[in-house]
Amino acid sequence: MQADLNDFFLLTRQRCEQTLDMALQNLPAMPVRLTEAMRYSALAGGKRIRPCLTYAAANALGAEISIADIPAAAIEMMHCYSLIHDDLPAMDNDDLRRGKPTVHKAFDEATAILAGDALQCLAFQIISEQQQFNAQTTCRMLSVLASAGGCSGMIAGQGIDLAAVGKGLSLAELEIMHQLKTGALISAAVELGALAAGCTDSRTLAALATYARSIGLAFQVQDDILDVTSDTQTLGKTQGADVALNKPTYVSLLGLAGAREKADQLVKDALQALEQLPGETQTLADIATYITDRRH
Amino acid sequence: MQADLNDFFLLTRQRCEQTLDMALQNLPAMPVRLTEAMRYSALAGGKRIRPCLTYAAANALGAEISIADIPAAAIEMMHCYSLIHDDLPAMDNDDLRRGKPTVHKAFDEATAILAGDALQCLAFQIISEQQQFNAQTTCRMLSVLASAGGCSGMIAGQGIDLAAVGKGLSLAELEIMHQLKTGALISAAVELGALAAGCTDSRTLAALATYARSIGLAFQVQDDILDVTSDTQTLGKTQGADVALNKPTYVSLLGLAGAREKADQLVKDALQALEQLPGETQTLADIATYITDRRH
Repeated sequence: MQADLNDFFLLTRQRCEQTLDMALQNLPAMPVRLTEAMRYSALAGGKRIRPCLTYAAANALGAEISIADIPAAAIEMMHCYSLIHDDLPAMDNDDLRRGKPTVHKAFDEATAILAGDALQCLAFQIISEQQQFNAQTTCRMLSVLASAGGCSGMIAGQGIDLAAVGKGLSLAELEIMHQLKTGALISAAVELGALAAGCTDSRTLAALATYARSIGLAFQVQDDILDVTSDTQTLGKTQGADVALNKPTYVSLLGLAGAREKADQLVKDALQALEQLPGETQTLADIATYITDRRH
Repeated sequence: MQADLNDFFLLTRQRCEQTLDMALQNLPAMPVRLTEAMRYSALAGGKRIRPCLTYAAANALGAEISIADIPAAAIEMMHCYSLIHDDLPAMDNDDLRRGKPTVHKAFDEATAILAGDALQCLAFQIISEQQQFNAQTTCRMLSVLASAGGCSGMIAGQGIDLAAVGKGLSLAELEIMHQLKTGALISAAVELGALAAGCTDSRTLAALATYARSIGLAFQVQDDILDVTSDTQTLGKTQGADVALNKPTYVSLLGLAGAREKADQLVKDALQALEQLPGETQTLADIATYITDRRH
């Protein structure tokens, strides 16, 4: 990773974790164990790529990065809730996440279900309660979050993924599944950053959407590559999990070389989209390049 | 039930179910089975008391009841999602809900988890996407929904409930648990109705909050009474379920006569709060009386 990008990652990860920590400190009505499970998930480390994208998009459009604190934390809460529920025994039944026992392993299944539910709700709550953005911007942010997190995005993709286990998907179906399951939230991360910066220009938003769609898919292709080329310790989650579940992946459909080619093309598409943007897009470009360079 | 109230229940139930049906018809990205599970839960009947309260509050403050369609449906989606997750094997492990197999029985556990997640998200989505209310009102509605459904309300109460199984709670602790677990969403139902009617007067909102708090608790006390005095067929859910789980209830803490007295006092408190309200509050009063008269 480039030195500048590394600094930006560190800075934004720290800001995001401070915001998450504060939001998860002040929950007086909650039983302690449930809050602990939420904190265990949300403060467990992780790459924090989604919040980093929110900060980077806001920053590219000329805003101070602090303006993106709340939307970045909200996106990460949505991501964390989805991980908790995806790992449940009835879903992917995974024991390891970010190098630690999954929430239902470290606590129990009921606590994991509720902690996920709570993180989803809190994502909406922290945006709806902040006072930084005007009501129009706040509504639009909540609409973007709900659309990307729910039936037009993440949950639809998760449902398609579940239904595909053991059945197989075509390349086109796999792409739709990933666009929904992970791409929608990555696109939302970028769009929330742009909204936080006060951007309403449709051309800028469209170019950012193309960038986000390309890196979202590249991210997933690289995940599939790492699932077969990396090891459990490096990944922090069970290596070969998708293969073991007989899930279709870019590698199973395109082969390893084909998947690498696909990822490289997507990064090129992302970089091309950035050329249409005003502002200082170097960080967004570096993130796109990092996605296929990463080893976990 | 009084004839007028019966008509109002029928009318608002129909409106709410039409709104839910429409919202759950237009989900093109979702796999069919997942949408079916959401529809199975949300269109399974039920008393629809929460949406009825939203309509009644809006109507009491002079609004056409159609203004409350979206917030009423959103409240019912939050309620349905909580029922799906509460019934899961890892939670209350219940097989029967509204006289039918629970979602994880009729479908499967993974689908039930996702259908619940999706209904929560869709509740926020339909409010954030409607165009009837101005941005300020929309934001306030979303904030009320998030606060009541999450870590300051329903999920906190559910967490306390889970932690209390086999342990026992004092009367004060039981009351806090119910205020959070069911009372918060009932209060939100009333508040959303008032907001839909354009009410911003703090005295009116405070009187409605007292009304809602009282009937919310009365509703729970009556549920506890019915859990020991009714039968499974009439209830549409497993009779004696709380006793079987050794959960503390108003009946176990106050005795049957004491619980009935408590419920009656709460209804009186609710009726008294209505006296401070402008507008035509007869329907709200009838709902309060109905809550302790109901047999399921």
